[in-house]
Amino acid sequence: MAKEPKQLDELFHDTLKDIYYAEKKILSALPKMAKAAHNDDLRAAFEKHKTETEGQIDRLEQVFQLIEQKPQGKKCAAIEGILEEGQEIIKEYKGSPALDAGLVSAAQAVEHYEIARYGTLKTWADELGLKESARLLKETLGEEEETDQALTELAETSVNQEAQREAAE
Amino acid sequence: MAKEPKQLDELFHDTLKDIYYAEKKILSALPKMAKAAHNDDLRAAFEKHKTETEGQIDRLEQVFQLIEQKPQGKKCAAIEGILEEGQEIIKEYKGSPALDAGLVSAAQAVEHYEIARYGTLKTWADELGLKESARLLKETLGEEEETDQALTELAETSVNQEAQREAAE
Repeated sequence: MAKEPKQLDELFHDTLKDIYYAEKKILSALPKMAKAAHNDDLRAAFEKHKTETEGQIDRLEQVFQLIEQKPQGKKCAAIEGILEEGQEIIKEYKGSPALDAGLVSAAQAVEHYEIARYGTLKTWADELGLKESARLLKETLGEEEETDQALTELAETSVNQEAQREAAE
Repeated sequence: MAKEPKQLDELFHDTLKDIYYAEKKILSALPKMAKAAHNDDLRAAFEKHKTETEGQIDRLEQVFQLIEQKPQGKKCAAIEGILEEGQEIIKEYKGSPALDAGLVSAAQAVEHYEIARYGTLKTWADELGLKESARLLKETLGEEEETDQALTELAETSVNQEAQREAAE
C-alpha cells in the first residue's frame, strides 16, 4: 500500500514537536546566559524569560493533549544552530565590554525563531479549527514578541552604550 | 601581551560576517524552494526574494567597504540548521498537499533570523556612528519584514486553505 501523503494536521503535529524540543533546549540555555550577563537588568530579563518558558512548555503540553498526542520533541537543527552561536558569543566575548550586546543579539535570534514558529502554528491551528490550541499558541506568541521588544529596549537604553563606554575608557 | 578584550566594533564585524555567510546560503537555497513550490504565487515570491537577496548581499559588501574590511563570511550554524529544516520539509512532504504550507513556514524561519540579525546590526551601526551603514542595513531590514508579511498573507489567503482543501478531497 502506498504511503498516504502527509496533511496539514501532520505538519502541525511535526512542527509542535519541533518547538517543544526547542523550548526545552532554550530552558536549559537561559541560566547559562543569565550567568554570563554583566548588566543586572539583562540578567533579570533572562531569569524572567526562564519562568515564562516553563509556562510555554506547559501550554505546548496542553496543545499535545488537545490533539490527543503524547508530548514529544523532535530534534530541531535550527535551535541547535542558534544556541550554538550564543555559546560562541559567551566564549569569544568573555571579559569584553561587548559581551552583553552579543548576548542580547543571541537571545533575539532565539526569540525570532520562536515568533516564526508560534505565528505559523497559530495560523495552522485556526485553519484546522483548533480554537483552544490557537488561543494557547497566540498567548505564547504574544509573550515572545514582548520579550523581543524588552530586549530591544534594554539594548538601546543601556547595553549597547555600556559596550561603547567601556570601550572608550 | 594579554589579548585585548573585543569591542562593539568587532562584534559588529563578526555579526556582519555571520549574515554575509547566511545570505549566500539563502541565495543557493531559494531556487530549490521555488522549484519545490506548487502554488504559482509562492514560487514567484521565492524567485522575487532571490533577486532581493542578491541586492542584500551587495549592500553587505558596501558595509564591509565602509568599515574598511574585506567582504568575508563566517560559518553560521544557525542558518545551516534553519535551512536543514527546510530541506527536511521538501523531502518529507514531497507530493503532499501540505508541502507549500511547510515551505512558507521554513521561509518565515529564515526571514525571522534575518530580521533579528539586521535589526541588531542596524542598532549597533547607529551606536557606532556608522550612518551610511545603518541606512543600508535598515533598507534590507525593511525588505525582510515585507517578505515575511507577504508570506503570511500568502499562507492565510491561499496556501493553508489549499493544504486543507486537497486533504479533504
